[in-house]
Amino acid sequence: MNKPTVEICLSPELLHLHQLTGKTVVVADVLRATSCIVAGLASGIASITPVATLEEGRQLMAKGYIGAGERDGKQVEGFHIGNSPFSYMSPQLSGKKVVTTTTNGTQAIQKSRAAAQIIIGAFLNLSAVALYLKKQRCDAVIVCAGWKGKINLEDTLFAGALVRKLEGIFQWEDDAVLAAGELYANMQMDLHAHISRSSHYQRLAKLGIKEDIRFCLEIDRFSIVPIVVGEEIVVSQN
Amino acid sequence: MNKPTVEICLSPELLHLHQLTGKTVVVADVLRATSCIVAGLASGIASITPVATLEEGRQLMAKGYIGAGERDGKQVEGFHIGNSPFSYMSPQLSGKKVVTTTTNGTQAIQKSRAAAQIIIGAFLNLSAVALYLKKQRCDAVIVCAGWKGKINLEDTLFAGALVRKLEGIFQWEDDAVLAAGELYANMQMDLHAHISRSSHYQRLAKLGIKEDIRFCLEIDRFSIVPIVVGEEIVVSQN
Repeated sequence: MNKPTVEICLSPELLHLHQLTGKTVVVADVLRATSCIVAGLASGIASITPVATLEEGRQLMAKGYIGAGERDGKQVEGFHIGNSPFSYMSPQLSGKKVVTTTTNGTQAIQKSRAAAQIIIGAFLNLSAVALYLKKQRCDAVIVCAGWKGKINLEDTLFAGALVRKLEGIFQWEDDAVLAAGELYANMQMDLHAHISRSSHYQRLAKLGIKEDIRFCLEIDRFSIVPIVVGEEIVVSQN
Repeated sequence: MNKPTVEICLSPELLHLHQLTGKTVVVADVLRATSCIVAGLASGIASITPVATLEEGRQLMAKGYIGAGERDGKQVEGFHIGNSPFSYMSPQLSGKKVVTTTTNGTQAIQKSRAAAQIIIGAFLNLSAVALYLKKQRCDAVIVCAGWKGKINLEDTLFAGALVRKLEGIFQWEDDAVLAAGELYANMQMDLHAHISRSSHYQRLAKLGIKEDIRFCLEIDRFSIVPIVVGEEIVVSQN
Protein backbone atom coordinates (compact mmCIF):
# COMPACT_ATOMS: atom_id res chain seq x y z
CA MET A 1 0.00 0.00 0.00
CA ASN A 2 1.35 3.42 -0.95
CA LYS A 3 2.02 5.81 1.86
CA PRO A 4 -0.22 8.89 1.88
CA THR A 5 1.51 12.16 1.04
CA VAL A 6 1.89 15.29 3.12
CA GLU A 7 2.66 18.75 1.74
CA ILE A 8 3.21 22.09 3.43
CA CYS A 9 1.84 25.29 1.94
CA LEU A 10 3.77 28.03 3.73
CA SER A 11 1.38 30.83 2.76
CA PRO A 12 -2.21 31.01 1.42
CA GLU A 13 -0.66 32.93 -1.51
CA LEU A 14 0.91 29.63 -2.63
CA LEU A 15 -2.29 27.57 -2.35
CA HIS A 16 -2.87 27.55 -6.12
CA LEU A 17 0.27 25.41 -6.42
CA HIS A 18 -1.30 22.64 -4.34
CA GLN A 19 -4.02 20.31 -5.54
CA LEU A 20 -6.49 19.99 -2.66
CA THR A 21 -9.25 17.82 -4.12
CA GLY A 22 -9.75 14.64 -2.10
CA LYS A 23 -7.20 15.69 0.49
CA THR A 24 -7.35 16.69 4.15
CA VAL A 25 -6.24 20.25 4.82
CA VAL A 26 -4.86 21.21 8.23
CA VAL A 27 -5.12 24.98 8.70
CA ALA A 28 -2.67 26.52 11.18
CA ASP A 29 -2.68 30.09 12.45
CA VAL A 30 -0.87 29.54 15.72
CA LEU A 31 -0.87 33.21 16.82
CA ARG A 32 -3.74 33.14 17.47
CA ALA A 33 -6.79 32.13 15.39
CA THR A 34 -6.46 28.35 15.34
CA SER A 35 -5.16 28.24 18.92
CA CYS A 36 -8.34 30.11 19.92
CA ILE A 37 -10.52 27.68 17.99
CA VAL A 38 -8.91 24.66 19.63
CA ALA A 39 -9.01 26.19 23.12
CA GLY A 40 -12.60 27.39 22.69
CA LEU A 41 -14.09 24.17 21.37
CA ALA A 42 -12.16 22.14 23.96
CA SER A 43 -13.65 24.41 26.65
CA GLY A 44 -17.25 23.93 25.64
CA ILE A 45 -18.09 26.35 22.81
CA ALA A 46 -20.68 24.59 20.62
CA SER A 47 -19.43 25.84 17.26
CA ILE A 48 -17.27 28.53 15.72
CA THR A 49 -18.18 30.06 12.36
CA PRO A 50 -15.29 31.76 10.55
CA VAL A 51 -16.28 34.61 8.26
CA ALA A 52 -14.14 36.83 6.07
CA THR A 53 -15.55 40.26 6.86
CA LEU A 54 -16.54 42.18 9.97
CA GLU A 55 -19.91 42.85 8.30
CA GLU A 56 -20.68 39.12 8.10
CA GLY A 57 -19.62 38.85 11.73
CA ARG A 58 -22.10 41.54 12.72
CA GLN A 59 -24.90 39.84 10.78
CA LEU A 60 -24.46 36.62 12.76
CA MET A 61 -24.16 38.58 16.02
CA ALA A 62 -27.58 40.01 15.23
CA LYS A 63 -28.83 36.41 15.17
CA GLY A 64 -27.49 35.73 18.66
CA TYR A 65 -23.93 34.57 17.98
CA ILE A 66 -21.09 35.63 20.24
CA GLY A 67 -18.84 37.85 18.11
CA ALA A 68 -15.06 37.49 18.06
CA GLY A 69 -13.46 40.20 15.96
CA GLU A 70 -9.80 40.92 15.39
CA ARG A 71 -7.91 43.06 12.92
CA ASP A 72 -4.15 43.55 13.04
CA GLY A 73 -3.94 41.86 16.41
CA LYS A 74 -6.54 44.08 18.09
CA GLN A 75 -10.17 43.50 19.21
CA VAL A 76 -12.68 45.26 16.98
CA GLU A 77 -15.16 47.62 18.63
CA GLY A 78 -18.64 46.20 19.06
CA PHE A 79 -17.48 42.58 19.21
CA HIS A 80 -17.77 40.56 22.44
CA ILE A 81 -14.25 39.20 22.42
CA GLY A 82 -11.05 39.61 20.44
CA ASN A 83 -8.54 36.95 19.59
CA SER A 84 -7.22 35.81 22.97
CA PRO A 85 -7.45 32.07 23.70
CA PHE A 86 -8.32 32.89 27.32
CA SER A 87 -11.47 34.77 26.31
CA TYR A 88 -12.51 31.76 24.17
CA MET A 89 -12.19 29.57 27.28
CA SER A 90 -14.61 31.58 29.39
CA PRO A 91 -17.27 29.35 31.04
CA GLN A 92 -19.86 31.91 29.89
CA LEU A 93 -19.34 30.80 26.30
CA SER A 94 -20.03 27.12 27.02
CA GLY A 95 -22.70 25.79 24.66
CA LYS A 96 -22.73 29.04 22.66
CA LYS A 97 -22.20 29.61 18.95
CA VAL A 98 -19.35 31.97 18.13
CA VAL A 99 -18.64 33.86 14.91
CA THR A 100 -15.01 34.79 14.31
CA THR A 101 -13.30 37.00 11.79
CA THR A 102 -9.54 37.29 12.00
CA THR A 103 -6.83 38.66 9.75
CA ASN A 104 -5.24 35.54 8.30
CA GLY A 105 -6.74 32.36 9.76
CA THR A 106 -10.26 32.79 8.42
CA GLN A 107 -8.95 33.53 4.98
CA ALA A 108 -6.77 30.42 4.98
CA ILE A 109 -9.85 28.31 5.77
CA GLN A 110 -11.94 29.95 3.04
CA LYS A 111 -9.21 29.42 0.46
CA SER A 112 -8.99 25.71 1.34
CA ARG A 113 -12.62 24.88 0.55
CA ALA A 114 -11.68 22.60 -2.37
CA ALA A 115 -10.35 20.00 0.09
CA ALA A 116 -12.30 16.88 1.10
CA GLN A 117 -12.11 18.05 4.70
CA ILE A 118 -10.53 20.89 6.65
CA ILE A 119 -9.31 20.41 10.20
CA ILE A 120 -7.78 22.93 12.57
CA GLY A 121 -4.30 22.58 14.01
CA ALA A 122 -2.23 24.36 16.65
CA PHE A 123 0.51 23.38 19.06
CA LEU A 124 -2.30 23.03 21.60
CA ASN A 125 -3.64 19.94 19.78
CA LEU A 126 -0.55 18.82 17.85
CA SER A 127 -0.62 15.12 18.75
CA ALA A 128 -4.39 14.88 18.30
CA VAL A 129 -4.07 16.22 14.75
CA ALA A 130 -1.21 13.83 13.99
CA LEU A 131 -3.23 10.88 15.31
CA TYR A 132 -6.26 11.95 13.28
CA LEU A 133 -4.21 12.07 10.06
CA LYS A 134 -2.59 8.72 10.77
CA LYS A 135 -5.98 7.09 11.30
CA GLN A 136 -7.48 8.60 8.15
CA ARG A 137 -4.42 7.79 6.02
CA CYS A 138 -5.48 10.22 3.30
CA ASP A 139 -3.23 12.74 1.56
CA ALA A 140 -2.78 15.90 3.61
CA VAL A 141 -1.81 19.52 3.00
CA ILE A 142 -0.79 21.68 5.95
CA VAL A 143 -1.79 25.27 5.16
CA CYS A 144 0.03 27.94 7.16
CA ALA A 145 -1.98 31.13 7.51
CA GLY A 146 1.14 33.32 7.49
CA TRP A 147 0.98 37.08 7.92
CA LYS A 148 -0.66 39.07 5.13
CA GLY A 149 0.57 36.58 2.58
CA LYS A 150 4.14 36.27 3.83
CA ILE A 151 5.36 33.21 5.66
CA ASN A 152 5.70 33.38 9.41
CA LEU A 153 7.88 31.48 11.81
CA GLU A 154 5.27 30.11 14.21
CA ASP A 155 3.05 28.48 11.58
CA THR A 156 6.10 27.12 9.76
CA LEU A 157 7.31 25.58 13.03
CA PHE A 158 3.89 24.05 13.73
CA ALA A 159 3.92 22.50 10.25
CA GLY A 160 7.41 21.18 10.91
CA ALA A 161 6.35 19.69 14.24
CA LEU A 162 3.40 17.97 12.58
CA VAL A 163 5.35 16.44 9.69
CA ARG A 164 7.91 15.07 12.13
CA LYS A 165 5.08 13.24 13.87
CA LEU A 166 4.02 11.78 10.52
CA GLU A 167 7.46 10.46 9.59
CA GLY A 168 7.50 6.84 8.48
CA ILE A 169 3.76 6.76 7.84
CA PHE A 170 3.45 9.60 5.33
CA GLN A 171 5.75 10.41 2.42
CA TRP A 172 6.68 13.74 0.82
CA GLU A 173 8.75 15.25 -1.94
CA ASP A 174 8.24 18.83 -0.99
CA ASP A 175 11.21 20.97 0.08
CA ALA A 176 8.93 22.98 2.35
CA VAL A 177 8.46 19.79 4.39
CA LEU A 178 12.23 19.27 4.66
CA ALA A 179 12.83 22.89 5.63
CA ALA A 180 10.03 23.17 8.18
CA GLY A 181 10.83 19.78 9.74
CA GLU A 182 14.49 20.69 10.10
CA LEU A 183 13.67 24.10 11.56
CA TYR A 184 11.40 22.55 14.16
CA ALA A 185 14.01 19.96 15.07
CA ASN A 186 16.49 22.74 15.71
CA MET A 187 14.16 25.07 17.57
CA GLN A 188 11.91 22.74 19.55
CA MET A 189 14.01 22.85 22.70
CA ASP A 190 13.10 26.47 23.16
CA LEU A 191 10.20 27.40 20.94
CA HIS A 192 9.36 30.47 22.95
CA ALA A 193 12.83 32.00 22.66
CA HIS A 194 12.89 31.45 18.91
CA ILE A 195 9.38 32.72 18.28
CA SER A 196 10.04 35.76 20.43
CA ARG A 197 12.47 36.85 17.69
CA SER A 198 9.73 36.59 15.04
CA SER A 199 7.99 39.53 13.42
CA HIS A 200 4.54 38.57 14.66
CA TYR A 201 5.71 38.18 18.25
CA GLN A 202 7.13 41.66 18.11
CA ARG A 203 3.82 43.00 16.79
CA LEU A 204 1.77 41.15 19.41
CA ALA A 205 4.13 41.84 22.29
CA LYS A 206 3.59 45.54 21.63
CA LEU A 207 -0.10 44.87 22.18
CA GLY A 208 0.70 43.42 25.59
CA ILE A 209 -0.36 39.84 25.10
CA LYS A 210 2.69 37.81 25.94
CA GLU A 211 0.62 35.46 28.11
CA ASP A 212 -1.48 34.56 25.06
CA ILE A 213 1.62 33.72 23.13
CA ARG A 214 3.10 31.54 25.85
CA PHE A 215 -0.20 29.67 26.05
CA CYS A 216 -0.40 29.18 22.26
CA LEU A 217 3.02 27.50 22.32
CA GLU A 218 1.96 24.86 24.86
CA ILE A 219 2.04 21.48 23.19
CA ASP A 220 -0.85 19.01 23.53
CA ARG A 221 -2.81 20.91 26.12
CA PHE A 222 -5.98 19.62 24.40
CA SER A 223 -6.83 16.41 22.58
CA ILE A 224 -9.69 17.53 20.34
CA VAL A 225 -9.57 18.00 16.56
CA PRO A 226 -11.80 20.78 15.23
CA ILE A 227 -13.27 20.14 11.79
CA VAL A 228 -15.09 22.40 9.33
CA VAL A 229 -18.66 21.19 8.71
CA GLY A 230 -20.58 23.44 6.34
CA GLU A 231 -20.06 26.96 7.64
CA GLU A 232 -19.19 25.88 11.16
CA ILE A 233 -16.19 24.46 12.96
CA VAL A 234 -17.07 21.80 15.53
CA VAL A 235 -15.25 19.08 17.46
CA SER A 236 -14.61 16.09 15.20
CA GLN A 237 -16.18 12.88 16.43
CA ASN A 238 -13.60 10.68 14.65
CA MET B 1 22.09 56.43 10.04
CA ASN B 2 19.41 53.79 9.62
CA LYS B 3 20.56 50.36 8.65
CA PRO B 4 19.42 49.22 5.21
CA THR B 5 16.85 46.42 5.20
CA VAL B 6 17.07 42.96 3.71
CA GLU B 7 14.09 40.75 2.85
CA ILE B 8 13.86 37.25 1.45
CA CYS B 9 11.22 36.34 -1.11
CA LEU B 10 11.15 32.52 -1.03
CA SER B 11 9.31 32.15 -4.35
CA PRO B 12 8.58 34.41 -7.33
CA GLU B 13 4.90 33.71 -6.56
CA LEU B 14 5.30 35.88 -3.45
CA LEU B 15 7.01 38.79 -5.23
CA HIS B 16 3.86 40.95 -5.24
CA LEU B 17 4.18 41.11 -1.44
CA HIS B 18 7.55 42.86 -1.70
CA GLN B 19 8.04 46.45 -2.73
CA LEU B 20 11.04 46.49 -5.09
CA THR B 21 11.25 50.11 -6.19
CA GLY B 22 14.59 51.67 -5.32
CA LYS B 23 15.95 48.38 -3.98
CA THR B 24 18.64 45.94 -5.06
CA VAL B 25 17.32 42.50 -5.95
CA VAL B 26 19.59 39.46 -5.69
CA VAL B 27 18.21 36.63 -7.82
CA ALA B 28 19.25 33.12 -6.80
CA ASP B 29 18.60 29.92 -8.73
CA VAL B 30 21.42 27.83 -7.33
CA LEU B 31 20.58 24.65 -9.28
CA ARG B 32 21.58 25.78 -11.81
CA ALA B 33 20.75 29.01 -13.65
CA THR B 34 22.48 31.60 -11.51
CA SER B 35 25.44 29.30 -10.81
CA CYS B 36 25.88 29.02 -14.59
CA ILE B 37 25.70 32.79 -15.02
CA VAL B 38 28.35 33.36 -12.35
CA ALA B 39 30.63 30.61 -13.67
CA GLY B 40 30.20 31.71 -17.28
CA LEU B 41 30.84 35.42 -16.81
CA ALA B 42 33.79 34.66 -14.48
CA SER B 43 35.22 32.44 -17.23
CA GLY B 44 35.10 35.04 -19.96
CA ILE B 45 31.62 35.09 -21.52
CA ALA B 46 30.96 38.70 -22.59
CA SER B 47 27.27 38.84 -21.68
CA ILE B 48 24.33 36.58 -20.94
CA THR B 49 20.83 37.56 -22.05
CA PRO B 50 18.02 35.81 -20.16
CA VAL B 51 14.80 35.35 -22.12
CA ALA B 52 11.52 33.77 -21.09
CA THR B 53 10.74 31.60 -24.10
CA LEU B 54 12.64 29.17 -26.31
CA GLU B 55 11.39 31.15 -29.32
CA GLU B 56 13.12 34.32 -28.11
CA GLY B 57 16.24 32.23 -27.54
CA ARG B 58 16.15 31.00 -31.15
CA GLN B 59 15.72 34.56 -32.46
CA LEU B 60 18.92 35.70 -30.74
CA MET B 61 20.73 32.54 -31.88
CA ALA B 62 19.85 33.57 -35.45
CA LYS B 63 21.75 36.81 -34.71
CA GLY B 64 24.88 34.93 -33.66
CA TYR B 65 24.33 34.37 -29.95
CA ILE B 66 25.35 31.10 -28.34
CA GLY B 67 22.11 29.45 -27.21
CA ALA B 68 21.69 27.88 -23.78
CA GLY B 69 18.34 26.17 -23.48
CA GLU B 70 16.94 24.12 -20.60
CA ARG B 71 13.50 22.87 -19.72
CA ASP B 72 12.83 20.61 -16.73
CA GLY B 73 16.53 20.08 -16.17
CA LYS B 74 17.29 18.93 -19.73
CA GLN B 75 19.06 20.58 -22.68
CA VAL B 76 16.65 21.63 -25.44
CA GLU B 77 17.29 20.32 -28.95
CA GLY B 78 18.88 22.85 -31.31
CA PHE B 79 20.57 24.82 -28.55
CA HIS B 80 24.38 24.84 -28.21
CA ILE B 81 24.51 24.11 -24.50
CA GLY B 82 22.12 23.22 -21.69
CA ASN B 83 22.30 24.33 -18.09
CA SER B 84 25.57 22.86 -16.84
CA PRO B 85 28.05 25.31 -15.30
CA PHE B 86 30.90 23.37 -16.92
CA SER B 87 29.57 24.05 -20.42
CA TYR B 88 29.35 27.76 -19.55
CA MET B 89 33.05 27.68 -18.61
CA SER B 90 34.25 26.38 -21.97
CA PRO B 91 37.14 28.49 -23.38
CA GLN B 92 35.29 28.47 -26.71
CA LEU B 93 32.65 30.77 -25.24
CA SER B 94 35.15 33.41 -24.13
CA GLY B 95 34.16 36.83 -25.44
CA LYS B 96 30.86 35.48 -26.81
CA LYS B 97 27.32 36.63 -26.15
CA VAL B 98 25.05 33.93 -24.76
CA VAL B 99 21.24 33.80 -24.66
CA THR B 100 19.75 31.65 -21.91
CA THR B 101 16.25 30.44 -21.20
CA THR B 102 15.74 28.29 -18.13
CA THR B 103 12.74 27.08 -16.17
CA ASN B 104 12.77 29.26 -13.08
CA GLY B 105 15.77 31.57 -13.02
CA THR B 106 14.92 33.65 -16.07
CA GLN B 107 11.41 34.17 -14.84
CA ALA B 108 12.61 35.34 -11.43
CA ILE B 109 14.76 37.97 -13.17
CA GLN B 110 11.92 39.15 -15.42
CA LYS B 111 9.54 39.47 -12.45
CA SER B 112 12.08 41.61 -10.56
CA ARG B 113 12.33 44.37 -13.18
CA ALA B 114 10.79 46.98 -10.85
CA ALA B 115 13.98 47.00 -8.75
CA ALA B 116 16.64 49.71 -9.04
CA GLN B 117 19.15 47.01 -9.91
CA ILE B 118 19.23 43.23 -10.21
CA ILE B 119 22.34 41.26 -9.37
CA ILE B 120 22.94 37.53 -9.61
CA GLY B 121 23.83 35.36 -6.63
CA ALA B 122 24.95 31.78 -6.07
CA PHE B 123 27.10 29.97 -3.55
CA LEU B 124 29.86 30.35 -6.13
CA ASN B 125 30.00 34.13 -5.52
CA LEU B 126 28.42 34.38 -2.05
CA SER B 127 31.00 36.65 -0.42
CA ALA B 128 31.28 38.87 -3.48
CA VAL B 129 27.53 39.49 -3.40
CA ALA B 130 27.60 40.20 0.34
CA LEU B 131 30.46 42.65 -0.12
CA TYR B 132 28.64 44.36 -3.00
CA LEU B 133 25.51 44.85 -0.87
CA LYS B 134 27.52 46.14 2.08
CA LYS B 135 29.27 48.70 -0.10
CA GLN B 136 26.03 49.89 -1.73
CA ARG B 137 24.12 50.04 1.58
CA CYS B 138 20.78 50.13 -0.16
CA ASP B 139 17.71 48.06 0.76
CA ALA B 140 17.89 44.56 -0.68
CA VAL B 141 15.46 41.76 -1.54
CA ILE B 142 16.81 38.26 -2.12
CA VAL B 143 14.54 36.54 -4.64
CA CYS B 144 14.70 32.74 -4.65
CA ALA B 145 13.74 31.24 -7.99
CA GLY B 146 12.21 28.14 -6.40
CA TRP B 147 10.77 25.29 -8.42
CA LYS B 148 7.65 26.01 -10.44
CA GLY B 149 6.48 28.47 -7.85
CA LYS B 150 7.18 26.35 -4.78
CA ILE B 151 10.06 27.06 -2.45
CA ASN B 152 13.17 24.94 -2.75
CA LEU B 153 15.82 24.06 -0.23
CA GLU B 154 18.94 25.15 -2.12
CA ASP B 155 17.80 28.70 -2.89
CA THR B 156 16.44 29.10 0.64
CA LEU B 157 19.83 28.02 2.02
CA PHE B 158 21.67 30.44 -0.26
CA ALA B 159 19.41 33.27 0.98
CA GLY B 160 20.12 32.18 4.55
CA ALA B 161 23.86 32.15 3.93
CA LEU B 162 23.71 35.64 2.45
CA VAL B 163 21.68 37.22 5.26
CA ARG B 164 24.08 35.76 7.82
CA LYS B 165 26.87 37.61 6.05
CA LEU B 166 24.85 40.84 6.29
CA GLU B 167 24.19 40.56 10.04
CA GLY B 168 24.99 43.70 11.98
CA ILE B 169 25.01 45.88 8.89
CA PHE B 170 21.51 45.23 7.56
CA GLN B 171 18.27 44.94 9.52
CA TRP B 172 15.13 42.87 8.89
CA GLU B 173 11.74 42.13 10.28
CA ASP B 174 10.89 39.33 7.96
CA ASP B 175 10.33 35.80 9.33
CA ALA B 176 11.67 34.34 6.08
CA VAL B 177 15.03 35.89 6.98
CA LEU B 178 14.96 34.29 10.44
CA ALA B 179 13.94 30.91 9.06
CA ALA B 180 16.42 30.82 6.17
CA GLY B 181 19.29 32.12 8.33
CA GLU B 182 18.62 29.49 10.99
CA LEU B 183 18.34 26.71 8.41
CA TYR B 184 21.67 27.66 6.87
CA ALA B 185 23.34 27.83 10.29
CA ASN B 186 22.17 24.29 10.96
CA MET B 187 22.99 22.83 7.57
CA GLN B 188 26.15 24.65 6.51
CA MET B 189 28.51 22.00 7.85
CA ASP B 190 27.29 19.60 5.23
CA LEU B 191 25.36 21.43 2.56
CA HIS B 192 25.72 18.63 0.06
CA ALA B 193 24.21 15.98 2.34
CA HIS B 194 21.24 18.18 3.15
CA ILE B 195 20.62 19.27 -0.40
CA SER B 196 20.89 15.70 -1.61
CA ARG B 197 17.63 15.07 0.28
CA SER B 198 15.87 17.89 -1.59
CA SER B 199 13.32 17.41 -4.32
CA HIS B 200 15.35 19.18 -6.99
CA TYR B 201 18.45 17.14 -6.24
CA GLN B 202 16.45 13.99 -6.73
CA ARG B 203 15.16 15.28 -10.06
CA LEU B 204 18.60 16.34 -11.27
CA ALA B 205 20.41 13.27 -9.95
CA LYS B 206 18.13 11.19 -12.15
CA LEU B 207 19.45 13.21 -15.08
CA GLY B 208 23.00 12.21 -14.12
CA ILE B 209 24.45 15.56 -13.21
CA LYS B 210 25.71 15.10 -9.70
CA GLU B 211 29.01 16.76 -10.61
CA ASP B 212 27.14 19.92 -11.57
CA ILE B 213 25.42 19.96 -8.22
CA ARG B 214 28.62 19.47 -6.23
CA PHE B 215 30.19 22.35 -8.18
CA CYS B 216 27.18 24.65 -7.61
CA LEU B 217 27.55 24.17 -3.85
CA GLU B 218 31.16 25.35 -3.80
CA ILE B 219 31.35 28.57 -1.83
CA ASP B 220 33.27 31.61 -3.15
CA ARG B 221 34.87 29.93 -6.12
CA PHE B 222 34.48 33.24 -7.99
CA SER B 223 34.60 36.86 -6.89
CA ILE B 224 32.53 38.56 -9.59
CA VAL B 225 29.03 40.00 -9.24
CA PRO B 226 26.86 39.74 -12.35
CA ILE B 227 24.41 42.61 -12.86
CA VAL B 228 21.47 43.05 -15.21
CA VAL B 229 22.05 45.97 -17.61
CA GLY B 230 19.19 46.46 -20.05
CA GLU B 231 18.52 43.03 -21.50
CA GLU B 232 21.96 41.65 -20.70
CA ILE B 233 23.76 40.32 -17.66
CA VAL B 234 27.40 41.41 -17.44
CA VAL B 235 30.11 41.56 -14.78
CA SER B 236 29.52 44.52 -12.47
CA GLN B 237 32.37 47.02 -12.39
CA ASN B 238 31.50 48.21 -8.86
